[in-house]
Amino acid sequence: MKKNVLIVGAGAVGAVAAHKCAQHSDVFSSVCIASRTTTKCHDIIQEIHKKGHHPAEGFALLARSVDAYDTDALITLIRELNTDIVINVCTAFVNRFILDACMETGATYIDTAVHEDYDVMNASYPWYANFEWKKRDACKDKGITAILGAGFDPGVVNAYCAYAQRNEFDHIHSIDILDVNDGHHGRFFSTNFDPEINLREIIEDAGCLEDGKWRTYPHHSRSMEYDFPEVGSKKVYLMGHDEVHSLSVNIEGLQTVRFWMGFDDHYLNCVNVFKNVGLLNHQPVKVGDGQDVVPLHLLKACLPDPASLASNYTGKTCIGTLIKGTYRDQSKEVFIYNICDHEAAFADANSQAIAFTAGVPPVAAAILVANGSWDVKTMVNVEELDPAPFLTMLTQMGLSTQIRVMPVSGQVEREEQLCVCVPDLKAM
Amino acid sequence: MKKNVLIVGAGAVGAVAAHKCAQHSDVFSSVCIASRTTTKCHDIIQEIHKKGHHPAEGFALLARSVDAYDTDALITLIRELNTDIVINVCTAFVNRFILDACMETGATYIDTAVHEDYDVMNASYPWYANFEWKKRDACKDKGITAILGAGFDPGVVNAYCAYAQRNEFDHIHSIDILDVNDGHHGRFFSTNFDPEINLREIIEDAGCLEDGKWRTYPHHSRSMEYDFPEVGSKKVYLMGHDEVHSLSVNIEGLQTVRFWMGFDDHYLNCVNVFKNVGLLNHQPVKVGDGQDVVPLHLLKACLPDPASLASNYTGKTCIGTLIKGTYRDQSKEVFIYNICDHEAAFADANSQAIAFTAGVPPVAAAILVANGSWDVKTMVNVEELDPAPFLTMLTQMGLSTQIRVMPVSGQVEREEQLCVCVPDLKAM
Repeated sequence: MKKNVLIVGAGAVGAVAAHKCAQHSDVFSSVCIASRTTTKCHDIIQEIHKKGHHPAEGFALLARSVDAYDTDALITLIRELNTDIVINVCTAFVNRFILDACMETGATYIDTAVHEDYDVMNASYPWYANFEWKKRDACKDKGITAILGAGFDPGVVNAYCAYAQRNEFDHIHSIDILDVNDGHHGRFFSTNFDPEINLREIIEDAGCLEDGKWRTYPHHSRSMEYDFPEVGSKKVYLMGHDEVHSLSVNIEGLQTVRFWMGFDDHYLNCVNVFKNVGLLNHQPVKVGDGQDVVPLHLLKACLPDPASLASNYTGKTCIGTLIKGTYRDQSKEVFIYNICDHEAAFADANSQAIAFTAGVPPVAAAILVANGSWDVKTMVNVEELDPAPFLTMLTQMGLSTQIRVMPVSGQVEREEQLCVCVPDLKAM
Repeated sequence: MKKNVLIVGAGAVGAVAAHKCAQHSDVFSSVCIASRTTTKCHDIIQEIHKKGHHPAEGFALLARSVDAYDTDALITLIRELNTDIVINVCTAFVNRFILDACMETGATYIDTAVHEDYDVMNASYPWYANFEWKKRDACKDKGITAILGAGFDPGVVNAYCAYAQRNEFDHIHSIDILDVNDGHHGRFFSTNFDPEINLREIIEDAGCLEDGKWRTYPHHSRSMEYDFPEVGSKKVYLMGHDEVHSLSVNIEGLQTVRFWMGFDDHYLNCVNVFKNVGLLNHQPVKVGDGQDVVPLHLLKACLPDPASLASNYTGKTCIGTLIKGTYRDQSKEVFIYNICDHEAAFADANSQAIAFTAGVPPVAAAILVANGSWDVKTMVNVEELDPAPFLTMLTQMGLSTQIRVMPVSGQVEREEQLCVCVPDLKAM
């Protein structure tokens, strides 16, 4: 039976998710986009209609206004729409309210980032255990499917780890998630997703597991060069990131798991100015005429809407997982990755690659829940699920997976598109 | 007879003016500091009391709240206090309201910057003629003394030109006003006076008179190195500045008059980021929750209060006027300048040198109005007045004048403290 989907969040990622749901009207009977202001939802629907898809008969695209901090309002909306699956691509501050609404109504919950508390910078480790995992037993008891961190990173990179664990390694020692954008949007400065989340995140301490111990470093205090497929050599900086925590728990015997993101000098210079002047503060300051204004909110209002970058974006992203361990008593190293082209993302879903890579995977997850293969009736992180149908579905949806296998010498041993053998998903 | 002074504006410059008035209780019977919020006025009064001066008997230091955009409120205040002299060191947006109040009440008007219209960036030439000079005839008719631009630059640098015209040259061809701060406040980024005025001003086009023609250049598009006395070689950038206009009119036969200010690379980098991101916009933007916020006002709220820099400021400023022309048929070049030490300014008036150099001159002018030597009963710019008593008074008040005379070869011919011969001002 086809499913009703509710997408909470009408930003750049929400738009991609809506486009992708609309492309799968064979799986979904209705898709509702909900946001504080419905104009953004209507704009997305209009863009989808312009794409000229021919959805299955009876498929409905809806727009609703909702305050995602209001669990009761969310419950009402979920019930009104007879929602089967909620895709939360709203700000990470609202995760727990949406999760609560799903647990109350029985709807499946899918998100793309760990919950954040607005007032807390540098949230103390262990991150998923601060909010989501406290509800794990209750989800299991109620038979609620809750898939946490099902974007690209976290999400697809976690599936890469699960794939490697099952197919490439006997034992994994270390995981380095590497995320670079070799794209050009032509604007002076822009974040590629919600500036509020992005600019908070990159000035937070970088937490990671190293040699079996949880460690914390000042932001941007550690960097390395890495020679990426297609986009070439890039400087990446250690950052804290959701999946570092869940992987450290879920990949047995793991000694090291880190997240690294690429930044160019201009980007870091701007962030450095913003930070040092106090523009990244998320607590209000008193402005001349008595207004209380949050500097980060004003900065966000000045910066480009990430969704607006898409039409002029060129270049590619490369996001992957560098995994080291042993296979048949030999040391082994693989880099499993995706290359996403900004222009191809725009052609497919009016998006840039960053929003595309974040917005496609939760829809893939929703499809797998709809067809039963991921409808696990409990709370999981992506690495706990079978990666095969997910990676296959992602390839079909425009996010293919490549694998580069290196022996210890550092030379590439083999490099190929990852072809996960699963039956035709539509037949499942 | 002693005079009652009203200082409008309780920022860093207003504080210096108040300190200096309090040090001259032989000339002034009362000094009132007026601002939108009286707490700032009371704070200044407290600081003055802490300095432990022994004012003349009956001398009063007062604080009042006033909206400087409200001419009627200003008139009421001037009348209530029986004000003889108004020193306007408030934002340049309010000049015309304060001038109107003085013209209505007969009080002397002294300011330090040309009027600016809030909504207008890159105000069209001729600047003083847009507002102030339109009232010149009316001032003359009513016998109102109005001294325009009586800070340091404009102000003292204009007096340097008048001095040079009277004493050093037969004919002046060109004037370059040079303003550098070789000080260190230890903060990541700060303006040295009102960020709103400063950050607007430095991204405006640079207007100047060159070879007899009025020209406009994009901001920071022209620069030069100049080897300053005491502070050494500095890079200065062409900017538009009030005095360029009035000097171009008042110094006969002048072919070139320009203003140059020193900026280091870090300062310009920050300004470049602010500007390109839209943080220098003075029109409101809509922030997430519906607030209308002026980016420049939020930025101002984040930046240090210029007055707060004073206690830790080290180093010196050098502001001067490089004048070229002929004397007795020989080419001649002089640089007339002041060196102001940040720490000395703090010892004298709890100020940094930028606020000190801006706040002392209007008080010197007020003293000269009080003793009759500058009580001209009309509207003038500083270069139209006798510079001798002004420069003498400034030396007594902590701002001495140096002169470096160079023959055409570029070598220094003589360098000395400028000693203007006027009788003891207190005896006048």
